[in-house]
Amino acid sequence: MAGSLWEDARTIIGAALKAAQPHEAVRKALADFDAGGGGRVILAAIGKAAYAMAEAAVGILGSRISRGIIITKYGHGGEALPGIVLRESGHPMPDENTIRATEEALAMVRGLAPQDKVLLLVSGGGSSLFESPRVPLPELRDITRQLLESGADIVELNTLRKRLSNVKGGRFALACQPARVFAVVLSDIIGDPLDMIASGPAYPDSSTSRQAMDIARKYELKLSDKALKLLSEETPKELGNVETRVTGSVTQLCAAASKAAESLGYAPQVLTSSLDCVAREAGAFLAAIAREHQEGLLSRAFILGGETVVKVTGRGMGGRNQEIALAAASGIRGLKDTAVFSVGSDGTDGPTDAAGAYCDGESADRLISQGIDLQEFLNDNNAYPALKAIGGLIMTGPTGTNVNDLTVLLIRR
Amino acid sequence: MAGSLWEDARTIIGAALKAAQPHEAVRKALADFDAGGGGRVILAAIGKAAYAMAEAAVGILGSRISRGIIITKYGHGGEALPGIVLRESGHPMPDENTIRATEEALAMVRGLAPQDKVLLLVSGGGSSLFESPRVPLPELRDITRQLLESGADIVELNTLRKRLSNVKGGRFALACQPARVFAVVLSDIIGDPLDMIASGPAYPDSSTSRQAMDIARKYELKLSDKALKLLSEETPKELGNVETRVTGSVTQLCAAASKAAESLGYAPQVLTSSLDCVAREAGAFLAAIAREHQEGLLSRAFILGGETVVKVTGRGMGGRNQEIALAAASGIRGLKDTAVFSVGSDGTDGPTDAAGAYCDGESADRLISQGIDLQEFLNDNNAYPALKAIGGLIMTGPTGTNVNDLTVLLIRR
Repeated sequence: MAGSLWEDARTIIGAALKAAQPHEAVRKALADFDAGGGGRVILAAIGKAAYAMAEAAVGILGSRISRGIIITKYGHGGEALPGIVLRESGHPMPDENTIRATEEALAMVRGLAPQDKVLLLVSGGGSSLFESPRVPLPELRDITRQLLESGADIVELNTLRKRLSNVKGGRFALACQPARVFAVVLSDIIGDPLDMIASGPAYPDSSTSRQAMDIARKYELKLSDKALKLLSEETPKELGNVETRVTGSVTQLCAAASKAAESLGYAPQVLTSSLDCVAREAGAFLAAIAREHQEGLLSRAFILGGETVVKVTGRGMGGRNQEIALAAASGIRGLKDTAVFSVGSDGTDGPTDAAGAYCDGESADRLISQGIDLQEFLNDNNAYPALKAIGGLIMTGPTGTNVNDLTVLLIRR
Repeated sequence: MAGSLWEDARTIIGAALKAAQPHEAVRKALADFDAGGGGRVILAAIGKAAYAMAEAAVGILGSRISRGIIITKYGHGGEALPGIVLRESGHPMPDENTIRATEEALAMVRGLAPQDKVLLLVSGGGSSLFESPRVPLPELRDITRQLLESGADIVELNTLRKRLSNVKGGRFALACQPARVFAVVLSDIIGDPLDMIASGPAYPDSSTSRQAMDIARKYELKLSDKALKLLSEETPKELGNVETRVTGSVTQLCAAASKAAESLGYAPQVLTSSLDCVAREAGAFLAAIAREHQEGLLSRAFILGGETVVKVTGRGMGGRNQEIALAAASGIRGLKDTAVFSVGSDGTDGPTDAAGAYCDGESADRLISQGIDLQEFLNDNNAYPALKAIGGLIMTGPTGTNVNDLTVLLIRR
């Protein structure tokens, strides 16, 4: 498939994925970090992208970093970085290495001076990889089990867990006092809820001890006296020593796509960065928007981020981004210079080797000429072979980041 | 449910429905009609809204109309209008009264002079209500039956039927020559395809005789020699004597809503006038847009027209507009001064007495406090009782028009 819209799609995807890279995201966030003054700079990088984030920080700040620690998932580390210890631990469930590594991080930030700074690099997976429980690990696991079996939701679960932890719910930032914390958060959660990403080690907790006690009563939890006492201890409600930058999030994925589209001559509009409906219906919705804007004089780019859902009813091969593009192909059939494309920012879409797909006003007819019934393939969740047949798959390979999906509607005038 | 957003919703709905009324739509379209000159003005109103359209025209042009005919569905007429004969006929299948009335209309426009004008008022239902077949009615019915049983689609069906008719496919306008035709089309079809509405009595036909012959061969139709000969006769490809105004369409429903929203202080944007995806997913999509625009300083109104689809999986009571609002309620939960509402322009939504529904950021919590599980009611296609419980139903009664649905997202800042 050739032509200017396809080229534009490639350019936009490239720019967006670049902006969502841990390296690029950290570089951008550190522009606001004042490494000056006489104090020490301690680096603590936690989460699945911890290594890449730390590497970027070391590349920028070099020997300005006094010492540091990386805590990431088994197999997610890399070559040794000068002055930085590398620890790998359990995910999705914390293990003894989690606790040991977390204690090490806590030891590193204890007893700092007011002029010292902690550079905290946070990415997804941190809830499990970064934990120092205030009750024995078996007891913490038992409480978690009781809550899950009683049907407690994730908010109730977190309200309790934050109180049983030395690092969650803002307590890591508390441990850093009187030093200042500059937190860079690489978000992989829609809406960037800072108290959810890695359980918010440097983010004030909005839940209260009273709520925690109510939850314990509601589910008739069996708790040790120590656990019960901990529930009544309040988490930090304000953290005066923390400055946070959310980066590499789906918001920035969209912003970078928007900027790239604008530089290609499109009037860009970010419709949402939290799209969460059924993939093929999102495609139909976008096609409806496309039909509305055929008469205009303006080239337009509608940009969406998020993570749509596929309701698997068939046994075919595909992914949510491929379903968006294929469904849109039906609704934009015959429209001139109009395209819809969608990619997963991690470079994989469903259980396929494609990152996503591109369809334009000619795709539906291309499918017909290949004897492919678009609706039938959609109904069978079999977008991949249909798109492959018309050269509509987008292949990027692994991208090294994961901040949800990017979907774009282009109308060239 | 009270508050300014609810009031704004009422105002916007009122303005949009008013603009979509046959009376208002005809009034607007006739602003472009030059009734001057010395010729006669002949009125021909056909379709389900023919009476209201004719009434409006008579109200405006009065005695300037020399004579006229209304052909509408049984029971859809009204009191006699001066100089206008009123005929009622078969729908959805033409009958002998259809043919008689259509012959009467043809007789009325035959032999007109170049300075004469035919004011043709077209609305939905006209395909059946306005027909003068060139083969005997039983034969026409037999051909239609053969086509339907062979699995022919509506485009193939129309390609043949236009050639077997004295009025379809532009042939009525041809019969009016040398007089000029001013056609006012009240559209009830998404995208306003003028050759589809009432089978396009004054619209050049884009299908060809060759296509008609191919279809006859493809389905191995049994046709009389006469019918076969008629298929080979070309329909008008250009009509120099026709001027057309499409009015009262979903486009105008959206335009009126947009104008009303603007006058209330919202920055309006018509996203589409051909929304056709699954209703509850449209609600989720709109909620995602709503979440994106919470931080802005601008009050915004996103406006959509179209006709969404409900996939019935449950046994509850509801309609597509109610499902849009209820699904959106989940996604905008807790958002301040944010509302989604949706109504059917005919005043009925599904098999209920409501026109649609309104939900805002507080609706989800209201449902919870009533012990109503939003998702469960949605899954059971049971939006009506849930919305009724929180006062979210919109009741308009019959509106006298039918130009698809109107959906609006309001964000007040």
